[in-house]
Amino acid sequence: MARSSARRRNSGNSRAGRSGTAITQQPWEQLRYRTAPTDVLSADQIEAIHQASLTILEEIGCKVLDPEARRYLENAGAKVDHGEEMVWMDRGLVEEKLKLPPSSFTLHARNPAKNLKLGQDYAIFASVGGPAFVSDLDKGRRAGTYAEMCDYIRLVQGLNIIHQEGGGPFEALDLPQESRHLDLHHAQITLTDKNWQPWGLGADRARDGLEMAAISFGCSREDLIDRPVFTTVINTNSPLQIDGPMGEGLVEMAKHGQPVIITPFTLAGAMSPITLAGALTQQNAEALAGIVLAQCVRSGTPVIYGGFTTNVDMKTGSPAFGTPEYTLAAQATGQLARRYDIPFRSSNVTASNAMDAQAAYESQMSIWGAMSGHVNLLNQGAGWLGGGLVASFEKLIVDAEMLQMMAATQKPIEVTDESIGLEAIREVGPCGHFFGTQHTLDRYQTAFYTPIVSDWDNYENWSDRGGLDTTQRANAIWKQLLSEYVQPPIDPAIDEQLKDYMARRKQEIHK
Amino acid sequence: MARSSARRRNSGNSRAGRSGTAITQQPWEQLRYRTAPTDVLSADQIEAIHQASLTILEEIGCKVLDPEARRYLENAGAKVDHGEEMVWMDRGLVEEKLKLPPSSFTLHARNPAKNLKLGQDYAIFASVGGPAFVSDLDKGRRAGTYAEMCDYIRLVQGLNIIHQEGGGPFEALDLPQESRHLDLHHAQITLTDKNWQPWGLGADRARDGLEMAAISFGCSREDLIDRPVFTTVINTNSPLQIDGPMGEGLVEMAKHGQPVIITPFTLAGAMSPITLAGALTQQNAEALAGIVLAQCVRSGTPVIYGGFTTNVDMKTGSPAFGTPEYTLAAQATGQLARRYDIPFRSSNVTASNAMDAQAAYESQMSIWGAMSGHVNLLNQGAGWLGGGLVASFEKLIVDAEMLQMMAATQKPIEVTDESIGLEAIREVGPCGHFFGTQHTLDRYQTAFYTPIVSDWDNYENWSDRGGLDTTQRANAIWKQLLSEYVQPPIDPAIDEQLKDYMARRKQEIHK
Repeated sequence: MARSSARRRNSGNSRAGRSGTAITQQPWEQLRYRTAPTDVLSADQIEAIHQASLTILEEIGCKVLDPEARRYLENAGAKVDHGEEMVWMDRGLVEEKLKLPPSSFTLHARNPAKNLKLGQDYAIFASVGGPAFVSDLDKGRRAGTYAEMCDYIRLVQGLNIIHQEGGGPFEALDLPQESRHLDLHHAQITLTDKNWQPWGLGADRARDGLEMAAISFGCSREDLIDRPVFTTVINTNSPLQIDGPMGEGLVEMAKHGQPVIITPFTLAGAMSPITLAGALTQQNAEALAGIVLAQCVRSGTPVIYGGFTTNVDMKTGSPAFGTPEYTLAAQATGQLARRYDIPFRSSNVTASNAMDAQAAYESQMSIWGAMSGHVNLLNQGAGWLGGGLVASFEKLIVDAEMLQMMAATQKPIEVTDESIGLEAIREVGPCGHFFGTQHTLDRYQTAFYTPIVSDWDNYENWSDRGGLDTTQRANAIWKQLLSEYVQPPIDPAIDEQLKDYMARRKQEIHK
Repeated sequence: MARSSARRRNSGNSRAGRSGTAITQQPWEQLRYRTAPTDVLSADQIEAIHQASLTILEEIGCKVLDPEARRYLENAGAKVDHGEEMVWMDRGLVEEKLKLPPSSFTLHARNPAKNLKLGQDYAIFASVGGPAFVSDLDKGRRAGTYAEMCDYIRLVQGLNIIHQEGGGPFEALDLPQESRHLDLHHAQITLTDKNWQPWGLGADRARDGLEMAAISFGCSREDLIDRPVFTTVINTNSPLQIDGPMGEGLVEMAKHGQPVIITPFTLAGAMSPITLAGALTQQNAEALAGIVLAQCVRSGTPVIYGGFTTNVDMKTGSPAFGTPEYTLAAQATGQLARRYDIPFRSSNVTASNAMDAQAAYESQMSIWGAMSGHVNLLNQGAGWLGGGLVASFEKLIVDAEMLQMMAATQKPIEVTDESIGLEAIREVGPCGHFFGTQHTLDRYQTAFYTPIVSDWDNYENWSDRGGLDTTQRANAIWKQLLSEYVQPPIDPAIDEQLKDYMARRKQEIHK
């Protein structure tokens, strides 16, 4: 496969390289929804879930392992048992704090042209973040290196449809675990000029992210307080627990006015009730707990409601992704987030271990669920494979194609006398064709969506070019995209400061 | 590949065969929409398209090659030029005839338990119909035989999610072209007990279909008039022409009260204007022309509004399928069909030549477009590959999976005290798990969607089983499904009559 891909690239026969031109992409642009979201729950059902989740927080309570987080909640009026590390919040407290976060805000990028609107009818697509492994068609699934990780980040920079780097595509296992985040952040800042996600695990790492972001913006860490630059994923430890590192990360980010994405990973039948209603209720309780905590740390901290409810395969206990239940949960979570008027995060996921048809259709099921639920931040939007354990180079390209197509379905349809073209229809008449009409000639270059990796050619031509499947074509495309990569400029003084900071911190960490 | 699939089946390691049990499927059931359709056009835009299409029919007119069809239109008040084979219908005539067709009706199957509701909030999924080629992983793309075609029809019978046989999966090229439809109909009647689609090309073939259907129902051809048994695809010959065989087929079916699916194949930029608005307007004019004709033949004939607007690749002239434009056109066509209160037909399509990721994501884009447009008949719903030139055995299985998943997203979500399970959440508390709770035990066997071909297992187990991709697994599954096939019973006297009819007609045709 590798050889045939290489041959194809060299022969200049690929779609992308057919005439030696650059990969064709849609321009950088944020998607705005123009059709109504799909409501899968009635207003009464949403209210029932809301009320039941308030009862959970009030009566059952949740564990919060970070003492500082508990103190913030206690000071705001929550009942706390420090010995048992338990917190109970009454409905009044929750309802009051829910009024504080903004419904939308601007997320800043190093390149201001790539600032993002987060919330309301805007969508952001983020790349994959966090997997343990990397994979491509040439070398299969493996532990990744820093050099490979940098290549992946270069592709994220190169793909216009990806608005945000998603927090490090995979672990750079050739670097020491304790300081790896510093090298990641340096790559995120210098290899892209897009907004990027930090690591939220623990107060020290959170501070490192904030310091390095501040350097990149030429300001101090304290100056960031009115400039949201991070969306940090804070996973609850379902059921009903915010663990130490997550609590610390949340508190640190909220202190600095930085948005947090509270994301319960509620696996129905394992870490939450087996019913969709039960899983959504528990998800909602956990999300509200995190949202309230963020508001207790700093009133008005931007928060994002993260939904990650899915089910386990009851035969094996494996989590399933991109299932009908996942789709429904995404649509329902969008409704809950709108109920609270805060932005909604969902994901593009699949359980498939191969970059194949299942990977595509499970991803489609999750993206459609997210988008028909009016997702504002599609986290893990491109590259995720194998239940989130793998960042795939080819999946990144296939996802970029799918996201571009989704975005194109949200473009307004122009219906005017000119666009209907009654005169062109009259001119052509029955049995003619429209290839040569002025109406066609005026529009043909921009009329339709142009694909990245899809092959629309007939069987004979496709076969003559080697009969490559989508994944094999994606393999050639990411290599070409990498060869076309241009590093965005950065002030050398800023890069120097970043390197100094990293060197100092590495000394402290490894002393 | 073939060998590894065979090995897998024999080793009993496949999902399907893991414990020697039958393929797990969802039960036979018709999907009903419970969420609102997605409107991509405003009411004003729909009206603009409607009015412009009336202007086309009134001023530009259309070619109708069948003289009998022209006479029906002339008798109803249309202006006709028989020499030029042209017909002009004024707005009043069109608006008046549009009031006649029913908004829904029952489509009868040989097995009454498999009768179908067509229209309103019901959906029907049909299998692929009409390709020239067959393909599977073992033997690739090729001309198909009658025996292979019968196998394909057996699979259509075996897959619960397929409600209707779609008109012959591919051409049986080992049979003479002139009488091939008779053998097809015999297979459709005897190998399935589901509703099936006939060939609408020409009056003679249409009558053969009607005669054989009548025999299968134990009635006369005339008796079918109040019993819809056929949905016959009538493609217009865009732009603005109804050709001879299609006109004849339409007239013959309408005379017998049989539903017709008027489907303009409006390729934007080739056979219609390059804009979506223009293509939809021309599609609407052509659809209305066919609908009016059916009503002129017989008032109240059930009609289905077929949408098949897509675009061509302006570089190669190849039609593209499952593109964003296709999705939008499907959603808009649903709105137009609802405007006229008649059922809506769309399709599940892809340009991909391989059963790969592109095949899956283009199919998903078309199914989501269709379903969010509340499609009533998803024609070509399972098996279509390579721009409609190929019926694929593996694609049939992958599509069945995707359709099952789509159907599952339309099931109501139960939100009650019991389903939320507050007491189970209380019992488990923070940091516990739900595997052993009564709430889980009571529900785990039916809680979640069970896949046909998706593999949710972890990388190690999946790898140990051979690391088969979706298409390879689908290959094993259709073979198992075929081995599990049970022919539905048929009265031997009826089968005898069918064979007699075929023998007589073959003599007439080949004399």
